[in-house]
Amino acid sequence: MKMPLQLIPLFEPIRPQMERVESLLHESLAEVEEPLGSMLRCSLGSGKRIRPALVILIGWMFTSSAPPLIPPIGGRTSAPPLIPPIGGRTSTAPFYSLAAAVEMLHTATLIHDDLVDEAPLRRGRRTLHTTWPAGATVLAGDYLLARAASLVAELEHPRMLKVFAETLCTMCAGEIRQMFATRGEQSQWEGYYRSIEAKTASLCAAATEMAGILAGAEEPQIAALRHFGRELGMAFQIADDGLDFIGDETQLGKPAGSDLRQGLTTLPTLCYQERVEDGSPVNAVLSGQRDAEHVRAAIEAVCSSGAIEAALAEARVHARQSQEALATLPDNASRQMLCSLAEYVVERRH
Amino acid sequence: MKMPLQLIPLFEPIRPQMERVESLLHESLAEVEEPLGSMLRCSLGSGKRIRPALVILIGWMFTSSAPPLIPPIGGRTSAPPLIPPIGGRTSTAPFYSLAAAVEMLHTATLIHDDLVDEAPLRRGRRTLHTTWPAGATVLAGDYLLARAASLVAELEHPRMLKVFAETLCTMCAGEIRQMFATRGEQSQWEGYYRSIEAKTASLCAAATEMAGILAGAEEPQIAALRHFGRELGMAFQIADDGLDFIGDETQLGKPAGSDLRQGLTTLPTLCYQERVEDGSPVNAVLSGQRDAEHVRAAIEAVCSSGAIEAALAEARVHARQSQEALATLPDNASRQMLCSLAEYVVERRH
Repeated sequence: MKMPLQLIPLFEPIRPQMERVESLLHESLAEVEEPLGSMLRCSLGSGKRIRPALVILIGWMFTSSAPPLIPPIGGRTSAPPLIPPIGGRTSTAPFYSLAAAVEMLHTATLIHDDLVDEAPLRRGRRTLHTTWPAGATVLAGDYLLARAASLVAELEHPRMLKVFAETLCTMCAGEIRQMFATRGEQSQWEGYYRSIEAKTASLCAAATEMAGILAGAEEPQIAALRHFGRELGMAFQIADDGLDFIGDETQLGKPAGSDLRQGLTTLPTLCYQERVEDGSPVNAVLSGQRDAEHVRAAIEAVCSSGAIEAALAEARVHARQSQEALATLPDNASRQMLCSLAEYVVERRH
Repeated sequence: MKMPLQLIPLFEPIRPQMERVESLLHESLAEVEEPLGSMLRCSLGSGKRIRPALVILIGWMFTSSAPPLIPPIGGRTSAPPLIPPIGGRTSTAPFYSLAAAVEMLHTATLIHDDLVDEAPLRRGRRTLHTTWPAGATVLAGDYLLARAASLVAELEHPRMLKVFAETLCTMCAGEIRQMFATRGEQSQWEGYYRSIEAKTASLCAAATEMAGILAGAEEPQIAALRHFGRELGMAFQIADDGLDFIGDETQLGKPAGSDLRQGLTTLPTLCYQERVEDGSPVNAVLSGQRDAEHVRAAIEAVCSSGAIEAALAEARVHARQSQEALATLPDNASRQMLCSLAEYVVERRH
């Protein structure tokens, strides 16, 4: 059973391309035996598809026929086609494979992270390890990692595979660092930024860098794309950590305050601790009093302190830096969508 | 701290090469942060190094200066050098990287499998998950997978990367299949052979195939190498499953009868069930009576039934097939060592 694709409004102009990525994800798992197939379809079945969209948009940005949004002087004045030319089969197929591979890698790391964190919900669904044995969950994540690597290997671009493998190293090392972080070793602020860089920004940077390599972009453009991806990822994760406090459970797909309840100190908490003298409602939760009443009081304390706004301001700094990184890239509809995406990741409500 | 390399006697002629693989494994982890570095060094620190030795021997087999054991008519008659010419740096470095990558992939799958199977001991040491949290163990395995992929990616041979990634897919899918196997779906014999093919033979086949690709061997030779690796892997695993009954705990590095205690039906058990009318001592353990007394009785029943010899005879068939696969390959000291290895894997006592 194939789920209908839920796209954020911004991605509507590339719906046909995103549906093709969806089909590729679906086809890749068509021959997987049960119950592994069901496990993977369930895990891959939702998500905002931001990382594959980055790959598709960058692929489109570098196809010579991409429509400029602002027609050149003396050039054609017709509106750009809503369905960009990446729809052709011959030269663009690798971008769909890369997009699918990036989503698979992302999902594989989520499967393992949710198991590690014992998270009950993800994207509004029960996490894999709450339905299947932990062992099967580990192996399903491994399988998805391997399939992602296999898709990238088929592109026969060794440099992309190096980026892919090194990104996975960075992500795993970051998760382990966070797990064993002891106070005093590094400031909590430094720890937070290193952690979100490893867990989110590194994969976004890898997605945009690999797409640039695949598009045959010049080296300075590839560096700009990587920088764009990194800053977008930082903005996305900081905003996500803010949403964990202010979001509504239905939209978040998990209860509010999940990070705090897990004992995780994210940017809103750090901003809160900097702003108030008596941080006891939050400290109570962080030191183990994780019942609903204490969590609710802590969320209220953080939200009423202005800490969320401070964190979001920081997210906006990264979003702006990501937009600035686009300056040297071809100026067309694709670049404009990437630019809008940088705004979206901060202003979204889920 | 670097552990002294424990080689099986057969590998003594390639000790300098194997020590270089060891150094590479060690160097690869030198900059890994703690505690991840310690976890990985502990997991990688022992093992028979059969898979990397396969890579080294095949690399050597195809270097034009490999010494023929039987000197050609009219050719030189001096004894072959004990240290084969693969020791040179320029053209042979990739074989060391591949050898290290294969050992890392093998170890990564062991880390996850031991967690999945809740195995307390491996190679005489406590398994990672008995010392570290399960979450850290999952991530350490992921990290090692990624480092292995990274080493292979650096060889810039897209075909090798495909083999690498597909092998990991096969191994994970096989483990999950075994986990959810239900009686009646397939015969237990078929299930056993599919399982050992996925868990052991596939990686040995991948190691020998990748080494052939790296050596620039002809396609029929690459196919022969793959076949050799597969059959060697089958022989190795069947013999391993026999040793699980007859081996001594000190040599095995784990208590005898571990498979049976885990409810795992391996070839000796299948041979036993075929040979006896009343299989109650073994059935008792398989149906859950896993105390020391029942396990001891079951081991004795299997050992006295002739089932171990029947299983080992089957292992010898695969070992012979692996030797036959070598027939079309260059006939030199390296081939002779691979041929001896096929005997060793069946006749070894640990």
